[in-house]
Amino acid sequence: MRINSWTQKLGKTIVGAAVMSAVSLMAMEPALAQDAAKAAPVSPEVANIFNTLLFLIGGFLVMWMAAGFAMLEAGLVRTKNVAMQCTKNIALYSIAGLMYWVVGYSLMYTGVDGGFLGSFTPYSWPDAGKGVIADGSYSVASDWFFQMVFCATTASIVSGTVAERVKLWPFLLFVVVLTGFIYPIIGAWKWGAGWLASGADTSWIKSIAGAEFQDFAGSTLVHSTGGWAALTGAIIIGARTGKFQSNGMIHPIPGSNMALATLGTFILWLGWFGFNGASQLAMGTVSDAADVSRIFVNTNLAACGGVVAAIILNQLIYGKVDLTFALNGALAGLVAITAEPLTPSPLWSIIIGSIGGIIVVFAVPLLDRMKIDDVVGAIPVHLMAGIWGTMAVPLTNTGATFLAQAIGVGAVAGFVIVVSSVVWLFLKYTIGVRPSLEDEAMGLDKAEVGLEAYPEFGSGSQKF
Amino acid sequence: MRINSWTQKLGKTIVGAAVMSAVSLMAMEPALAQDAAKAAPVSPEVANIFNTLLFLIGGFLVMWMAAGFAMLEAGLVRTKNVAMQCTKNIALYSIAGLMYWVVGYSLMYTGVDGGFLGSFTPYSWPDAGKGVIADGSYSVASDWFFQMVFCATTASIVSGTVAERVKLWPFLLFVVVLTGFIYPIIGAWKWGAGWLASGADTSWIKSIAGAEFQDFAGSTLVHSTGGWAALTGAIIIGARTGKFQSNGMIHPIPGSNMALATLGTFILWLGWFGFNGASQLAMGTVSDAADVSRIFVNTNLAACGGVVAAIILNQLIYGKVDLTFALNGALAGLVAITAEPLTPSPLWSIIIGSIGGIIVVFAVPLLDRMKIDDVVGAIPVHLMAGIWGTMAVPLTNTGATFLAQAIGVGAVAGFVIVVSSVVWLFLKYTIGVRPSLEDEAMGLDKAEVGLEAYPEFGSGSQKF
Amino acid sequence: MRINSWTQKLGKTIVGAAVMSAVSLMAMEPALAQDAAKAAPVSPEVANIFNTLLFLIGGFLVMWMAAGFAMLEAGLVRTKNVAMQCTKNIALYSIAGLMYWVVGYSLMYTGVDGGFLGSFTPYSWPDAGKGVIADGSYSVASDWFFQMVFCATTASIVSGTVAERVKLWPFLLFVVVLTGFIYPIIGAWKWGAGWLASGADTSWIKSIAGAEFQDFAGSTLVHSTGGWAALTGAIIIGARTGKFQSNGMIHPIPGSNMALATLGTFILWLGWFGFNGASQLAMGTVSDAADVSRIFVNTNLAACGGVVAAIILNQLIYGKVDLTFALNGALAGLVAITAEPLTPSPLWSIIIGSIGGIIVVFAVPLLDRMKIDDVVGAIPVHLMAGIWGTMAVPLTNTGATFLAQAIGVGAVAGFVIVVSSVVWLFLKYTIGVRPSLEDEAMGLDKAEVGLEAYPEFGSGSQKF
Repeated sequence: MRINSWTQKLGKTIVGAAVMSAVSLMAMEPALAQDAAKAAPVSPEVANIFNTLLFLIGGFLVMWMAAGFAMLEAGLVRTKNVAMQCTKNIALYSIAGLMYWVVGYSLMYTGVDGGFLGSFTPYSWPDAGKGVIADGSYSVASDWFFQMVFCATTASIVSGTVAERVKLWPFLLFVVVLTGFIYPIIGAWKWGAGWLASGADTSWIKSIAGAEFQDFAGSTLVHSTGGWAALTGAIIIGARTGKFQSNGMIHPIPGSNMALATLGTFILWLGWFGFNGASQLAMGTVSDAADVSRIFVNTNLAACGGVVAAIILNQLIYGKVDLTFALNGALAGLVAITAEPLTPSPLWSIIIGSIGGIIVVFAVPLLDRMKIDDVVGAIPVHLMAGIWGTMAVPLTNTGATFLAQAIGVGAVAGFVIVVSSVVWLFLKYTIGVRPSLEDEAMGLDKAEVGLEAYPEFGSGSQKF
Repeated sequence: MRINSWTQKLGKTIVGAAVMSAVSLMAMEPALAQDAAKAAPVSPEVANIFNTLLFLIGGFLVMWMAAGFAMLEAGLVRTKNVAMQCTKNIALYSIAGLMYWVVGYSLMYTGVDGGFLGSFTPYSWPDAGKGVIADGSYSVASDWFFQMVFCATTASIVSGTVAERVKLWPFLLFVVVLTGFIYPIIGAWKWGAGWLASGADTSWIKSIAGAEFQDFAGSTLVHSTGGWAALTGAIIIGARTGKFQSNGMIHPIPGSNMALATLGTFILWLGWFGFNGASQLAMGTVSDAADVSRIFVNTNLAACGGVVAAIILNQLIYGKVDLTFALNGALAGLVAITAEPLTPSPLWSIIIGSIGGIIVVFAVPLLDRMKIDDVVGAIPVHLMAGIWGTMAVPLTNTGATFLAQAIGVGAVAGFVIVVSSVVWLFLKYTIGVRPSLEDEAMGLDKAEVGLEAYPEFGSGSQKF
Repeated sequence: MRINSWTQKLGKTIVGAAVMSAVSLMAMEPALAQDAAKAAPVSPEVANIFNTLLFLIGGFLVMWMAAGFAMLEAGLVRTKNVAMQCTKNIALYSIAGLMYWVVGYSLMYTGVDGGFLGSFTPYSWPDAGKGVIADGSYSVASDWFFQMVFCATTASIVSGTVAERVKLWPFLLFVVVLTGFIYPIIGAWKWGAGWLASGADTSWIKSIAGAEFQDFAGSTLVHSTGGWAALTGAIIIGARTGKFQSNGMIHPIPGSNMALATLGTFILWLGWFGFNGASQLAMGTVSDAADVSRIFVNTNLAACGGVVAAIILNQLIYGKVDLTFALNGALAGLVAITAEPLTPSPLWSIIIGSIGGIIVVFAVPLLDRMKIDDVVGAIPVHLMAGIWGTMAVPLTNTGATFLAQAIGVGAVAGFVIVVSSVVWLFLKYTIGVRPSLEDEAMGLDKAEVGLEAYPEFGSGSQKF
């Protein structure tokens, strides 16, 4: 039957949609027609619009995460550095938005083809009124927007860890490299169909490790990348003056505004529905829409598990519940489920998220003992919970293996540590990354930003 | 005509959509075809995706309301209790998210069948890639997500009223019961097709009261439920020390951060478009999409009416406009329209919302005179305006009667008051609900959370 | 072929959609069918739902901008005026929501027909369950909602400029006139198909200026309107006491909370995706969805450009980066791209936004030298960048001319300056617009709102 064979071909070329229904129904008996109607009566155009809408909604939710990071960090630094932290956050999002257009997206997606990186060119979109279905199953610009906000997230992670003792412009230069090159190259390896993916069945990683590297929404590609860049920064820049004292004591430096930190966490949680949900990349079929829904629910359960695990553990260990652990527990649960938010059952999602929360409770004091100064806890949250989530994928996804996951985690670690170190060290020994001791004591708001965040009520009394 | 009779049957089984068009058009003249095209050419699959999308968007907007409550409450308590309030809010949302999976959803929806509650089982969703149209007219998980965030809202309401003088864990244990059992059972009565609904025409309530109980998005089921639980808590826990003085004076305890309270109110207002709009439960037809739009507009008009009524009344009575009344006026308008945001005309919406705002202006001092200490005004807003909105449904919806509405309001009151009292009293006489006087004076942040919300600028000078 | 000619007619009457596919496919060969399927197999009903959804999503995002303005302004005033600023913002949004129903929408859209204004009647929507495709290609209420939030934006702009020295009720009365009459009349001229548009080819402006006035999402109609109203207000009300001193010195008055100002800016940025994106007015075709995506991306690039240009220029001129310039740079970039977010290339978008950011850096001190006291920088951002963006349209849109743009800019300037001046002067010489010197010194929170925004940590020490 010629019509059917044509529809089959069309169905293969256009993801998630088909015009089959109208055509098929014509020549069929009602009983058959009903089956056909169930199969796929979403036209390619309608599917394209749904997919585009998913990217746009997911995109604006993830863009909103930039505000979440800004508030979380503004709440966890001292008053004297709040305006600086806000400046860094709006600037890093802006730089990411430009760099990912200048070179990032093409480096990540254009012609990677099993290799290590794409091409060095700005990206472009169809002219006004020229968007057509042939562009793919979604609007090209909506995809760019969604990918760009992921890129910005990576930089936000770094910002929190190295807060309160890095100068503005060196940090922003690091962001230029991170968002224009480091993250896009990492992304190319998997999402750009590079060497960690298996576009062809004969791919290297599949033959070695039994599966390609799996990272649904970026526990490793986004969060660990940011985490490694943050860790190298924290080590190379050094701790805040006074944090680790010569007598071995650790001087606690409380954040200045817990309400803002809480707000930031809620914003991030909200944004994560876009981060994970829209990483399904399609909702033009009933099945895809159900999967996006499943991802929403699993993402939420993991975060809930992270919070509850963290606060129970806090109570058991310390006899009190520290709010910052509840907040970071939520975030760790979210990061952990990000590598695979689709296949886990509800119970698995809760377990994966809970372990994320537990990791935070143990990792934060561990970092202190290692004299690594992570102002907001981004390394436990984004790096450690990210690794945990990535390694947990084979527990629920039969298409993943521990070896492939380990290869991916290790490769990202190696690349990001080396390149980030080079960049941080270059900045350190050229323009310098740290403010003077006087500036650090005075606060970066007065030293670098030229205004105070809370001129009427910030006491500024705590120098170090 | 066999094809048509098949399409009619299919059209009945699948809500809000049909594949009629393609089939029907084949054999018809253009003029007829045009009519058919108008009727329902949204395929069941496309309708399913639209409905799912409505739940997901509505769901993330209502999830965001959790942040709104957190900010509103953080702004309306004293600095010494801000971190505690934030801890309670992120924890209650997490507990709701888990309990509604463990038992809540099934208790509310599975096999209620005219009765009082469903079954005691965790819920489940289709596996990845297995979502099919046969699941219903929307993705099962998207529905769960949307219902879960409603459940969390109920707990958020309680949190605000009993702030500043309840210990963390007793409160969280109350939340476990509220979100796992109390709210789901109340919800089962109406939304789970229980005894307040009329699945069969012979239902009890219809024969007695002429109509089933009507509560479109939960003025009673959500807001009054939270309100009654808050009221019993406020009475059993008692007022904050120093609020009602022995000489009969009422000691005003101003909130610490009006900017955050305003932010929280705007967040709630935004979230309410999801709360009411997505309670249409479908946007897979032109008519449903128009109804969702009508609900958005009516919801907004009611809130606007609540604000304007509250500030004018404030000016007339007190000669000043108290911001907290403007904020609570908005919320009361929103709660009032929630019982029926679809049928009112614009003018009716404004009137219903305005009366909500007026209720707040009179109820807040009334509660003070009754020596009931409601820190954020949740009882006037959620309970009183919720009752008003529920009783106002028959004014615009001919399918409702005052008797049926009163039965619903009364039944919810009775059940929630009794069960909440039992739980609060049990907690009071076992682990205790109140912190020590010393802890209350010092603030719950230091006493229970172990960190201060604003260590650099919270003066903490006002002990009681 | 009769069927095809009918489909062509239908295709013309219903924007962005067609039932062609099913009908056309019947009689065609597969190859032809494929072409037809590409053309437009989105049914009018599905297109209607997509368009409605775009308005609803866009609408709630722009509604959220009201919170953004509230936070931006709360952050940029002194603590003693924060509660007042919050009160003004929630009240102005509420008044806009009512006035745009009472008279605004009809004045803007009903029967303008090449003229200057529409009719003076409240608007109405289809009853519940009565929304039909014949209403247009979207739900009527969704369109009202989207237009209403634009109206509210205009008032938010004024609120910031005249902060800290205007009494509450005079300001709110100005808002009544602005949102009920001034903005709707301006809107009627272009978006209501009035004299600046060219419904008929013989329109006045097209014959004079070679094109109709072009303003895609309102750089002039919304932002300059708000900006002119703000400017006349600032001049007529006068500067804050102490701002411009008798010896010619300008006394800097720092904002009280940079974290909130940053949050507000991020909220506005997020909302702008709705502001510009949904101004495409349709996403029921692949082409429209691609255009909405392109608008998202261009809007984001312009804001990024505004930030980066502003901070680089800051560094070059002052040797420091002032956070408020970064924030206003983002907003100026957003305002500048609003007149035409669709046609520019990525590079053009960056340039247009960057120039917006540059304008802010030069215009803020310029206003100070002119002794115009604009508390939040709304005049540089909304008025000056709005004019820039409007005049830049012909650079990328061949359907625009500089003369037509200048006519639109000038006409709006003339009308808004004259009418706003009359209203502000009337208020000044009747009920008075300024608080007493004592009240201004004490702060408007205590004087007019009756509560303090930060009672525990606002020092209130800076009188003037």
